[in-house]
Amino acid sequence: MTAVGVDLDGPGAEEVLAVVRRARAWLSRAAEPGSLVFWRFVEQHGPVEAVRLLRAGRGPEAVQALVGVRGQQDASLADLRRAERCGARLVVPEDDEWPALALHALTVAVSGEPADSREMTDRTVAPVPPVALWVRGPGRLADVVDRSVALVGARASTAYGEHVAGDLAHRLGERGWTVVSGGAYGIDAAAHRGALAAGAPTVAVLACGVDRVYPSGNGALLERIAQEGLVISEWPPGAAPHRHRFLVRNRLIAALARGTVVVEAAARSGAQATARRAKRLGRPVMAVPGPVTSAMSVGCHELVRDQELGAVLVGSAAHVIEEVGRLGEDLAPVPAVAPGLRDELSDLARRVLDACPVRRGVSPERLAAVAGCSVVEVLQQLPALEVARLVEWTGTGWRLAPAPRPAR
Amino acid sequence: MTAVGVDLDGPGAEEVLAVVRRARAWLSRAAEPGSLVFWRFVEQHGPVEAVRLLRAGRGPEAVQALVGVRGQQDASLADLRRAERCGARLVVPEDDEWPALALHALTVAVSGEPADSREMTDRTVAPVPPVALWVRGPGRLADVVDRSVALVGARASTAYGEHVAGDLAHRLGERGWTVVSGGAYGIDAAAHRGALAAGAPTVAVLACGVDRVYPSGNGALLERIAQEGLVISEWPPGAAPHRHRFLVRNRLIAALARGTVVVEAAARSGAQATARRAKRLGRPVMAVPGPVTSAMSVGCHELVRDQELGAVLVGSAAHVIEEVGRLGEDLAPVPAVAPGLRDELSDLARRVLDACPVRRGVSPERLAAVAGCSVVEVLQQLPALEVARLVEWTGTGWRLAPAPRPAR
Repeated sequence: MTAVGVDLDGPGAEEVLAVVRRARAWLSRAAEPGSLVFWRFVEQHGPVEAVRLLRAGRGPEAVQALVGVRGQQDASLADLRRAERCGARLVVPEDDEWPALALHALTVAVSGEPADSREMTDRTVAPVPPVALWVRGPGRLADVVDRSVALVGARASTAYGEHVAGDLAHRLGERGWTVVSGGAYGIDAAAHRGALAAGAPTVAVLACGVDRVYPSGNGALLERIAQEGLVISEWPPGAAPHRHRFLVRNRLIAALARGTVVVEAAARSGAQATARRAKRLGRPVMAVPGPVTSAMSVGCHELVRDQELGAVLVGSAAHVIEEVGRLGEDLAPVPAVAPGLRDELSDLARRVLDACPVRRGVSPERLAAVAGCSVVEVLQQLPALEVARLVEWTGTGWRLAPAPRPAR
Repeated sequence: MTAVGVDLDGPGAEEVLAVVRRARAWLSRAAEPGSLVFWRFVEQHGPVEAVRLLRAGRGPEAVQALVGVRGQQDASLADLRRAERCGARLVVPEDDEWPALALHALTVAVSGEPADSREMTDRTVAPVPPVALWVRGPGRLADVVDRSVALVGARASTAYGEHVAGDLAHRLGERGWTVVSGGAYGIDAAAHRGALAAGAPTVAVLACGVDRVYPSGNGALLERIAQEGLVISEWPPGAAPHRHRFLVRNRLIAALARGTVVVEAAARSGAQATARRAKRLGRPVMAVPGPVTSAMSVGCHELVRDQELGAVLVGSAAHVIEEVGRLGEDLAPVPAVAPGLRDELSDLARRVLDACPVRRGVSPERLAAVAGCSVVEVLQQLPALEVARLVEWTGTGWRLAPAPRPAR
């Protein structure tokens, strides 16, 4: 409600959401994704006010400079209609299907960035959440990526790498895991195909508009993903796959999935960059080994040898699930905590806890409004509360966890 | 001198060594190698007295039981002559060429074993030093194994594994490293061949007599190793390659080399066992990855995935040398220590230091005699003294390190 000054659950909610969505559609085209300055400006003012300021040329100089002449243009309605024509929609943070849990890591990471734009991480690698996501496909975004693994790797892959990527994706799909990848030739395509063959959803995160067929040879594959999984992008319909956009896009692959597996990669390659970003977001990084005589496995071996990175060598879907599975769900359960724990919480943690409803899960934004703190503060408290089994993620939002049974 | 009551460097030294050698030849056949009880008995009494006691049936019951009817037999002279006929010799701890530095780890590890034989580690895996080594080949044993790496792996290897083993061995050989292996089919043979092709020495550690051709298909290879490298064994000439002897033998491969590389191994295999023994001796363990689709790489991947073991993934000779190289010799030098360090030593460390001669290096046994302490105590002090650059290993023994230049 901070964003637009209206309760998103109250009367007129749909109309408000439509206004917010149109504003975010405009913002999606106004500046290249990945800009920390831009994202902070939108966070500070909310999307509707941010658009108003920028269109009036009254945004801060740095932000106005990013927008440039696009400040005088408005293709938002056209973009939303163009998306609709190809079966796509714009998913915004105010939507229930926004993958807040997955993007949590970006929101936390971005809070550690300096205020001075000259000291900020380069836009191509900065951990900035998206202002909105163009989504094409039947599934609810938050649900589809909830149990997901990124399989990434070289475009110039070998038959071995493609076989392993396809097989891993297939077996992960069979066990109810979504495979996230970049829709590219080589490992990406093999991973998507393996997941589809298992009848499992798969997500292609593109560096161009969701209506573009890029790379052209993957047209049929992308079409099938859009039918059975999700094709998503930060860029508005029609956006071209510029080289730098792939780098910006990589952080989304890393953030949306619970962990990233590099199947084949040359030395010092793009897949390694995605792996490093995943690590920085606190996500497990895994690498599939191969023959030491294969140039396409050198990058994977480098990842495993890099002690700082700590990439885990994986050779099977079971190995992958061991890294990304949740306790009690995919792995052995954790013991219940004592009921007295609630008393030991900090004031902030207790406020967040008290803001959680009993039944329907709500978004971190909602929790922040009720608890009277920032979204970042909410996101920082939630993991500890979840580990303590005081709150739980329903798949759509956070709510109080059922009270633990009394200790015997 | 504790062993035989005579100074091994004084007059009559050669005659004394001949007596000691004959005693150790007898001991080598009297009990299966790897017995901790037996080794301790020999250490306690010295080889000559130990033989006298056992032949008179006056050894402790447990030791006498190990020897059995062999106590009444004496094939020592025949064994020494049989060895001589095939160009072999018996190397004993009292010899200059005894690999005391390499076997250091076993001597230290064995000191941690319990006194009660019922609680001791099983003979097939106990970290027991050999009582003597039958050696066939031109090189001085201690020199040849000083800069060495063990390359081990499956007998049922693939063409990939053999290629990698041969290539690694060749490149290590080119850089002055000795390759230690077990003389078996598959990875072992490929490693020996790669080293020989580089004109580098290689050491085959057998589980049978050094005059036996086992496995028979490796006859020509073993012959060539005996010409250009070393074929060694704990078992006397003629000893057959019984199954359990391979397990006992593995600790020697692990101990003699500075680190062990597993090139190919099936799940839960013998090569893995050797790797775990190397780790227990404080030696780096390395594993070569391969296709995850290859059953012969599963064991290597298991080693890398085993966090407790911490096997390092290696794909090149440079990777291997990074793990086993010494600072200042193969790797970047360490800074010199301040001269005042000598004053901070414990009494025992200072006694060991004072026992070190300035010029010719001497054995730990000699240092123990001069310093008035046990060999184990000497071996426990030497690493710290070496790190502090107060003593150095000459390749044949320990001596004082040249005084560091005064600090600027």
